Amino acid sequence: MPPKKQQSVKTFDYSGLEKGMRLQVESDGKYYAGEVVTVSKSAGRSKAPVKVSYVGYTGYDEWVGGDRLRSKALQVSTAEAGGFRHNIKAYYTMPQVPNPLLVDIFAREKGVDLVALEKTVDLPSLENRKGDSQAKNPAGQVPYLELRDGTIIAESIAICEYLEEAKPSPPLIGTTPKQRAVARMWQRRMEEHFVYPCFNGFRFATAHPDYPEKSGGLAAFKDFFKERATPENGCALVPEAYKGLREWSVNKLKWLEALKKDSKDDFVCGKRLTVVDIQMYTTIKFMGAAGEPCLEEMKKLAWLSAWYDRMDARPHVKAAIEHSKGLLW
Amino acid sequence: MPPKKQQSVKTFDYSGLEKGMRLQVESDGKYYAGEVVTVSKSAGRSKAPVKVSYVGYTGYDEWVGGDRLRSKALQVSTAEAGGFRHNIKAYYTMPQVPNPLLVDIFAREKGVDLVALEKTVDLPSLENRKGDSQAKNPAGQVPYLELRDGTIIAESIAICEYLEEAKPSPPLIGTTPKQRAVARMWQRRMEEHFVYPCFNGFRFATAHPDYPEKSGGLAAFKDFFKERATPENGCALVPEAYKGLREWSVNKLKWLEALKKDSKDDFVCGKRLTVVDIQMYTTIKFMGAAGEPCLEEMKKLAWLSAWYDRMDARPHVKAAIEHSKGLLW
Repeated sequence: MPPKKQQSVKTFDYSGLEKGMRLQVESDGKYYAGEVVTVSKSAGRSKAPVKVSYVGYTGYDEWVGGDRLRSKALQVSTAEAGGFRHNIKAYYTMPQVPNPLLVDIFAREKGVDLVALEKTVDLPSLENRKGDSQAKNPAGQVPYLELRDGTIIAESIAICEYLEEAKPSPPLIGTTPKQRAVARMWQRRMEEHFVYPCFNGFRFATAHPDYPEKSGGLAAFKDFFKERATPENGCALVPEAYKGLREWSVNKLKWLEALKKDSKDDFVCGKRLTVVDIQMYTTIKFMGAAGEPCLEEMKKLAWLSAWYDRMDARPHVKAAIEHSKGLLW
Repeated sequence: MPPKKQQSVKTFDYSGLEKGMRLQVESDGKYYAGEVVTVSKSAGRSKAPVKVSYVGYTGYDEWVGGDRLRSKALQVSTAEAGGFRHNIKAYYTMPQVPNPLLVDIFAREKGVDLVALEKTVDLPSLENRKGDSQAKNPAGQVPYLELRDGTIIAESIAICEYLEEAKPSPPLIGTTPKQRAVARMWQRRMEEHFVYPCFNGFRFATAHPDYPEKSGGLAAFKDFFKERATPENGCALVPEAYKGLREWSVNKLKWLEALKKDSKDDFVCGKRLTVVDIQMYTTIKFMGAAGEPCLEEMKKLAWLSAWYDRMDARPHVKAAIEHSKGLLW
């Protein structure tokens, strides 16, 4: 059976419309100048809650819905097939770096189309650390969401939680409080002791005189974070820590391997794919390509290697990797 | 007005009962031997979903509810006043250290009584790193919850999320997906760049020859993490990083001060108390008392100092501090 064609169902937010506002109203296939007479909040009028008058014509006032109106004050959301109703205006990202890749895979596995909402932030030119982007997300990273009302949601895992709430199925965190709690526990365990030491080991290594000749790594990243992880941005570089942090991240992989090697679990959280698998995969994928030791060390661990191959083979993962080409692959 | 007396309302989980199972049934104040005839899942029978027969008496079969049954297969939850219905069997903790303090304050602010469920894990004797406790939570920290079905929920923020779902009011994460997303964004920003560098700076400092004479700190903690943050536990100590990590954490406090100093926000996330305030407060409170620089540095920052004083003055915070006496205060 071929996949169902994506159906687009519009939902309308009428809260921006006010009495007296000018707009365009469709009638028999043509748009006329109109004016808002009133906006009803009654449930009975929910399909056609706007009473309009036609400018220049009396006696034709009519209740209409968003499908027959054109106005900048009328907010339209698109509900994709699968019931994803969102209020996201834009998804700011640069697909070639780890956190966008995490959110991108998460969204694809959920059947959420973020690509349609993408606006690129140019990290190499520091666009994320100045002007409009910095004002929107003062922490300075990508990705982040801008909602229709202007709210900014940054931090990848917060974005994933938001998408999970907007479209609960298929669940990548969980369907019950208990399931969600167990997934969050695993996500945090592996983040604090694997993902963060891995990221920081990378950042700090690039600032060390060893980099890249003696430490391993790619010449392109030398001093990449010097103007990024600055005190003004609430950060610091601790070059002397790079070896210790790399060791820490590898120690946690070995810890996980010891817990999992005799299990029949396909995923970190047990039988089901969750956000922690996606976060770990994107970290190992990117950092391995950047010459950090996590990928090579992981290959010595049987359960983790098999898990990584399973992740690599997932169609949505492949699609996200294809979409993120251009920097390290 | 005196506080309302705690009301205890039992809720029953009938899913463990099966046809033919023996149990005890109450009738006119006495318990009789009985047998399960059937268990109904229909909404109309929800108050008395179990049809029982009385052993030795025919013609008396009857629909009854959990309040009239005794059986190990019948799971009972207690709903405290305020609508908190939980399935927590035990709360493993040692109140004198930072993460339990975070969860304790969170629970008190929500009106959830975790103290009644407390079981102490003795960290000084490494009880958390061996035997039963290590088997339950292989990551080795406190606190963690054990649910009635045996599920373990570790990691403080995962526990807070679980409590928020069990008792949504008053919200300390949020009542809408958008509110929750914004709170989670702030929690993660301040955790990655303040809380973790602060914790790691402390752990690493205690392993450095400088500690405590040249680095500041309390003699009692010298080498405290040597047998704790080990490779076997998926960790590592990076003593040489302690100064840089302390600086990083202070840089983030200054970053937050710059964002907040001209605002009228009472809290990190805006107008409302959320989990991020509690996590930051407990970090600064404990680390300050342990001789780490964050408390003194914070005192130089006007908005943060006023925020800290507001946190300190909250009755539930005071009660949790009192409960956690014995190590650093």
